[in-house]
Formats: sequence, structure tokens, C-alpha cells
Amino acid sequence: MTSIDLNADLGEGFGRWRLTDDEQLLTVVTSANVACGFHAGDAATMRRVCAQAAERGVRVGAQVSYRDLAGFGRRAMDVPPAELAAEVAYQIGALEVFARAAGTRVSYVKPHGALYNRIVHDEAQAAAVVDGVVLADASLPVLGLPGSRFLDLAAEAGLPTVTEAFADRAYTERGTLVPRGEDGAVITDADAVVGRSVELARSGTVVAHSGERIPVRARSLCLHGDTPGAVELARRVRAELAAAGVRVEAFV
Amino acid sequence: MTSIDLNADLGEGFGRWRLTDDEQLLTVVTSANVACGFHAGDAATMRRVCAQAAERGVRVGAQVSYRDLAGFGRRAMDVPPAELAAEVAYQIGALEVFARAAGTRVSYVKPHGALYNRIVHDEAQAAAVVDGVVLADASLPVLGLPGSRFLDLAAEAGLPTVTEAFADRAYTERGTLVPRGEDGAVITDADAVVGRSVELARSGTVVAHSGERIPVRARSLCLHGDTPGAVELARRVRAELAAAGVRVEAFV
Amino acid sequence: MTSIDLNADLGEGFGRWRLTDDEQLLTVVTSANVACGFHAGDAATMRRVCAQAAERGVRVGAQVSYRDLAGFGRRAMDVPPAELAAEVAYQIGALEVFARAAGTRVSYVKPHGALYNRIVHDEAQAAAVVDGVVLADASLPVLGLPGSRFLDLAAEAGLPTVTEAFADRAYTERGTLVPRGEDGAVITDADAVVGRSVELARSGTVVAHSGERIPVRARSLCLHGDTPGAVELARRVRAELAAAGVRVEAFV
Amino acid sequence: MTSIDLNADLGEGFGRWRLTDDEQLLTVVTSANVACGFHAGDAATMRRVCAQAAERGVRVGAQVSYRDLAGFGRRAMDVPPAELAAEVAYQIGALEVFARAAGTRVSYVKPHGALYNRIVHDEAQAAAVVDGVVLADASLPVLGLPGSRFLDLAAEAGLPTVTEAFADRAYTERGTLVPRGEDGAVITDADAVVGRSVELARSGTVVAHSGERIPVRARSLCLHGDTPGAVELARRVRAELAAAGVRVEAFV
Repeated sequence: MTSIDLNADLGEGFGRWRLTDDEQLLTVVTSANVACGFHAGDAATMRRVCAQAAERGVRVGAQVSYRDLAGFGRRAMDVPPAELAAEVAYQIGALEVFARAAGTRVSYVKPHGALYNRIVHDEAQAAAVVDGVVLADASLPVLGLPGSRFLDLAAEAGLPTVTEAFADRAYTERGTLVPRGEDGAVITDADAVVGRSVELARSGTVVAHSGERIPVRARSLCLHGDTPGAVELARRVRAELAAAGVRVEAFV
Repeated sequence: MTSIDLNADLGEGFGRWRLTDDEQLLTVVTSANVACGFHAGDAATMRRVCAQAAERGVRVGAQVSYRDLAGFGRRAMDVPPAELAAEVAYQIGALEVFARAAGTRVSYVKPHGALYNRIVHDEAQAAAVVDGVVLADASLPVLGLPGSRFLDLAAEAGLPTVTEAFADRAYTERGTLVPRGEDGAVITDADAVVGRSVELARSGTVVAHSGERIPVRARSLCLHGDTPGAVELARRVRAELAAAGVRVEAFV
Repeated sequence: MTSIDLNADLGEGFGRWRLTDDEQLLTVVTSANVACGFHAGDAATMRRVCAQAAERGVRVGAQVSYRDLAGFGRRAMDVPPAELAAEVAYQIGALEVFARAAGTRVSYVKPHGALYNRIVHDEAQAAAVVDGVVLADASLPVLGLPGSRFLDLAAEAGLPTVTEAFADRAYTERGTLVPRGEDGAVITDADAVVGRSVELARSGTVVAHSGERIPVRARSLCLHGDTPGAVELARRVRAELAAAGVRVEAFV
Repeated sequence: MTSIDLNADLGEGFGRWRLTDDEQLLTVVTSANVACGFHAGDAATMRRVCAQAAERGVRVGAQVSYRDLAGFGRRAMDVPPAELAAEVAYQIGALEVFARAAGTRVSYVKPHGALYNRIVHDEAQAAAVVDGVVLADASLPVLGLPGSRFLDLAAEAGLPTVTEAFADRAYTERGTLVPRGEDGAVITDADAVVGRSVELARSGTVVAHSGERIPVRARSLCLHGDTPGAVELARRVRAELAAAGVRVEAFV
């Protein structure tokens, strides 16, 4: 039987500000990418989300970022590798406290925003993130794009790697994401997103921007939690996956 | 044979800025209070200081603070207890990553600056810091002032407590510190500081501001590292302790 | 004819986070307390709110705060007076750029959150805020609670002072606010808030917690913008004031 | 008679941390690039440096930066132009308060660190910085590298432009700086720096890395203030310029 993991970014508020409906998203996803304080996520929020995730049996992952609250981690930064590695480890360690206090563990690492995009190609920063993860725990799986330098270097360093796909993003024929800002890069039609989710999970393929069907290896699907209707859409995706005979469960 | 621990604040730079001569201080102290990023201490510095401490066999402690880079943690803040507890745990967890990577562990917690002073008397914040430490690791010793609410509540919570004294601060007859800002609160004469250090370690007493000799229980002496001549003075203290037959070693 | 000013906190998002419905609130209020970056309010938001306020003819005020993004400026801090004065002036200057670029000026200063509350009684901090305002512009009006140390010291320093009242807060018999956290401190019934608004504007009185009618001098009413239904309630207050023959206009 | 301006970065501490010997440097330079809080420079420091500069008759300039205290503004960031423009204006406005309070004005703008380097070539960010300066004050001169996109776009926008040179940096034959990190990029020999300073001021030429003498237009020389011996070297440069008949004075 086919199975798929569902991951989403959680705990992305800061102090007075809220962004994601953490409580509802935790009823849908199997892996929670918890913000660790550098782009979002204060300590009290981290603690609460870890407790809620543990209670629901949802796996906790460290969503590590550039240090950039003002830009929500969405602005690429030329951080020297040694600093970046240390900052990644720092975030993982901080989250680990709350995961353990909740009776669970940080089970994987997923880079956020501009860092996620940058290490698809940037050798030095990809290596630095790998170093940071290894520094924190050399057995931690990392989540990323298939074919990214990040996953390749992580594999070389002995870290388990987990590929993910985006049902609400258009793909090029080569299997990369159509950059945000280009026409049709983001798929907003809910039916289409649900359909693509099932397709990605069952057949490991998706229809590219060009109309051609292409293979996309993915053990996890990323759901977005910070848009209106996000929770409802996530619920539909999960229900349709189940209806299609796909088991929704955390990656091993 | 009498023994005493020597502790000092280390890693109190941030990014481009340096404050403490970490490398030299690590040749003198037996316990390093490492800044964890809230009042000072970026991730790369934390990593470096942990590595150097581990190499020298110096014990690593988490110097936790209010979140206040602009004020260096020296401005008391009315942080709600739940936030404060989470922030304390966050800092300990972040440091733990670097301690472990260096082959050691966070071995104790010492609050910094305004937080240190506030929890001498502030019940709610003292309890919050204790909660934060327990959240991170319920077996972690805490370092503080004898008679402080912090140490009392920590003991009630089952945390090992370690008392410390300040050879360069004047004491009242009741054994509390003369507040900074009052005449003679800080002792700047190096000979006097050295003499008081030996006295505190050997006899567990010190001459109070009033001229009366008073008992001061202390398993650790705090040396200051951020003033000119700090390293040299610290070396003299250590040498004179040794000469007086006091064993300088980390508290158990 | 009686007139009253309506003020509300605006621009209280930061980066990715939004809090207040600035655009709608600007259709209701006559004075906009714009966050200046210390508790909320990034530079791009400040620019946008100033432009929108100027377009609508709404007066721009500097909502100055402790430096505390993580606590949204709601945690009292022991900031030394010289630092606090400089921080207040810094925020006013930063906002002034955007007010001028929009063709208007910073027309008043209103402290935010914990700072607002602290300087009701804290002599040193009240004086520091006054110093900061004078440093920026010795002719700037300040908005605050009648009877507060802040307004008294501001008046002594020659600053114009403007008193404000809160229609959604309970008052003691002595005319001070019932502290949040006490029973009935916040009035949530919309009809009651509207009724009290009209009463405050027309008769300069309000029924205190005790049931006794007391005088409350106020040239401005503070409307809250960060709760669900805030905009609708603000609209009702404004409409009922007009219906009661009160002219809603910025204080002179 | 030939004249030259001497500029240096000042006020580059933050809270507890100091970096530059502001008081001594103000006895040497004619233009003070004051840090505005984004890479360094708290409000109290900005106030103090402005007061000292005004007292000495040294011109005050706004040293604007990416928002990056942890990286001291030395990490290039992909800040969207609208955000960058607003952040530049914010910093200028904040400094203007302290300049005015000291009886002077912000007289020019000089970007700092990674932003300075990036806008040599980056069209969008160069335009954003120009927009930010125009937003604050459309008559403000800007300081930068001859031939940079920043100065070209500033000139197109009607801003006065001022070119600067670095006596302690090697130049390529085309008149650009040899990138840091390459051999010989930074000239550490004090005599050489002094000699090149005089040469740049008197003849508008310098010997390039290749040995060829090249023209370098510069109305200002940038002195570095954050290295050991910086003040002494700055004094020698100023004395030798005077001895060579060069008038050291602020650019008009």
C-alpha cells in the first residue's frame, strides 16, 4: 500500500503575532515543521506547539532559517558558512528542549524560506546547513527538494534524506519548481491541488507546466498553512488521499 | 582540604563585538558561564567557547538572560512567567548542542545580570527560571546567591543548588551584596580582592562593609572578565588560592 | 458644540505579520498612533500608514515604546533614563521621515503599552520620555492619562498635553483605570462601550466601577483596533457621537 | 589649493559593546559616518556622537545598512526594493533627530558594508537606496565609489554625489577595488597608506596593483577606525596631508 507524509510549517507567529492555525493543522499533518525563533517562533510558542504535536502523535521537525525576523526568513543572505552552520545547530538545540519536554524528539530538519531555496544550488550554504545538522545530531533526517545540492550533500554526510513535493506549485519539465512570480507558478484552484496531491502520492508523477507528465519522487507533501482556507484544503487533501487508498503517515 | 570553584562569564561578545578574553579566562576558571544569545553570545561564539572549554577541561554552564541585546540583559523586565520559563529552556537547549558537539554537557545554569538580581527576591520570576531549568533538564545544578528565592525554590524543585560569592563586592552585615551605586559597593583594589578570595575560600567568611566579619557560604567564586586587567587579576586569585592550600576545582 | 478626537493604534504588524486593519481604522479615527518599530511597525508599514493617513486627513502620531518586539512592548523594563530618552527621540525621528514624505508631520506622541502604564507613576521614566520628546521637537503635544506623572512633567517642560479616556475600560472612583486582570476591568459589551463614549464626550463623566458618576477630562477617546469586531465597533462609536451632536475632529 | 575630506565610520558600538574610538577619531576626520542602529549604533550612542561631532565642527552623515546586527551589516541580503528604501529612510530620520538636537543636520548618506558593495553593481538595490534617500531628503549628498551604479542613479535622481577613495586598499587597473580576500587587497603598511593618501589627494592618482599609475577621482578619503592603531594612523594621514599643502576640509 502506498503511503505519504504530510508536512506543514507551524508555530510561525512571534510574540503578539499569530500566523498559522497550529491547533487545526495538527489534526491534519503527520510532520510539523516548527519555527525555531530565527524567522518566527518565540520560545513559548515552540513549547506549546511541541506539546500539542506530541499529544496528537505528530512528528516534530526543526524548521531552521536565516536570522531574519523582519523579513520572515524570505530574504537570501550571504551568511558565512561557519556562522550558518552554528545558527542551524542553535535552532535545532533550542527546539529539542521543547520536543523532549513534550515526550518526543526533533525528528527531522527542514530549512525555511530563502534558505530552503538557496541551498538547492548554493554549494557552500548547503554544506553549512549539513554541517549544522551534523553538529546537532548526525542521525537527523533532512527534508528537501529532490535533486537539490542540499539533499545530495546531506546524503554524502550520512544523513537520511527525505524528498518532498508541492501539490500547489507548478513544475517544469525537468522536475524543478516554476519560480514564484512567473505565470501559473502557484496553483490556487483547490480541486487541482487535491487532484495533484493524490497523483503525486499514488503515481509519483505530476503534470508539468508544459502539459507533459513527469516523475516527482516525494515521500512527503508540503501543505501551506498560512493562507485563508489552508486548513480546509489540508483536510480535503488528507481525506482524498485516504479515499484513494493512500496511507497518510510520517516517513520512517 | 578546602576546595573552591572559580566561575566567570564568557562568550559575551555578539557578532562583530568582543567583550571577554575567553581564551585567557579559560586558563583560569573551572566553570564557564557561557552567554546563550539573549544578552550576548552568537551561535558561532557559543560553539567556539564550548570547544575551548572542553579542550581545557573547564565545565560549561548556561548563562541565561532576559531577551535584551540592546541592554546586555541589565534591565529588569516584567516577563510573564510562562514566557520566561520557555526562554530559559530555549537558551539551555541551544547551548547544549554546542556543549555536546564539544564532547561535554551543559553542567549548570547561572542567570545573568538583571535576571540574576531580580530572582533574589521576585517569587514569580524565580519560580519561572526554576521551571525553565526543570523543563530543560531536571537534574541541572543552578548557581546563585545564598538565601535567594531562586536557590530556595530550586532546592524545593529538586535541583542541586550551588552558592557563590563575589570577592570584589562589598557585603552588608546580613550577608547580602551592597547595591552597585552605593559607596564602596565594588572593590577595585586588586590586593583586597585577592585577599578576600582566599578568606572566602578558606574560612567561609568575609569582612562586611560595617567592619564585622560575617559568614558567607560559597562553593564558587565569581570572577569578572569584562574589565581591563580582569585576566591578570583572575590569575593572581587562582595562584594565591593555590598558595594558601585551597584546591581550585569545579563544584561536584 | 462639543468635539472629541478619536485615536487608535495603527501599523502594529511587523514584516510578515499583520495585526490592525489600518485601512479601515483610518476611515474612523482622527488621530493615528503609528507604531515606530520598537514594539511593532517595520519601516515599509510606517511609510504606508503615513501615506494612507495623510490621504484621509488623519493626523499622525508617534506611538513610542520600549524596545521589545518579542513582548510587543507590554513588559515593563528598567531602562536607564538616558537610554529611554534617546530611544523615544529615535522613534519619533524615524516616523517623521515618513510623515513628511506623505506631506504631513508627526503631530503628537503617545507612549505604548507597558511604557504608557509605567509613566503614570514612575517619575524617572516619565521624565525620560518627556526629555525624548523635547529632544525631537519641543513643541510636540503628548497624549496620556489625566493626572499621570507623564502629563504633569510634560506640561512643566512646556509640551502641550492632551488627555484621553477609554470607553471600554472600567474606572475607579478616583478616576484611574481598574487594572486589567481585575473583574470587569475591560468592558466588552458593544452597546455599553458606545454609550460610555457618548457620555464621556458630551458630559465629561462616566459611571465608575462603584456605580458613582465621576468626571473624566478627555479631549480624545482611545479606540482599540486589534480585536475582532474592532472596526465595526469604532464605526458605531463614531456614528453615535455624530448622532449625539458631538463633532469628531482631531484635537488642536 | 587642493583640498580633501576625511571620513570614517563612527558610533559602531551597540549597547554594552564599543568598537570605534569615536572621541579620538572626531579630532581627525571632517565627516563622521554615524551608524544608525541597523548594523550598529544604539540611540544613546547616536546622540552622543552627534553631540561630539557638532561640538568639534565635524559634519554628520548617516551610515545606513541592512538590518543585521548579528552580521554587522556585512552579509549581503536580498531585501525587496520597497523595504530597503523604507529602511534607508527610517535610519536617516532617526539620526536626523540627534543631529538637529546637537545643532547640526544629517549632511550626507553613506551606505555601509555589504550594502555599500552590493549597490556598486546591483541596479535594483542601488535604486532603492536612492529612493530611500530622496524619501528622507531630496537634497542630501551621497558618498560612494566612482563609477558605481549607486552614484550614477543618485546623480540621475538629482542627488549631489561625492566620490571617495581608500588609501589602504589596492586598486585594479580599471580603478575598482581589489576584492578583500585576494592577495594584497588590504594595505597594512602605515607608511604606504600615508603616502597613498597624499598621492590620492594631490594628484588624483594611485599606483594600481599592476604597478601602473591610474586616475582615481575622490573628494573624500575613507579612514578605517576599527583596527588597532587606527587613530594614530588617521592622525599621521591628516598631518602629512597638511604638510603636503592639502587642505583637509569637509566636501561642499
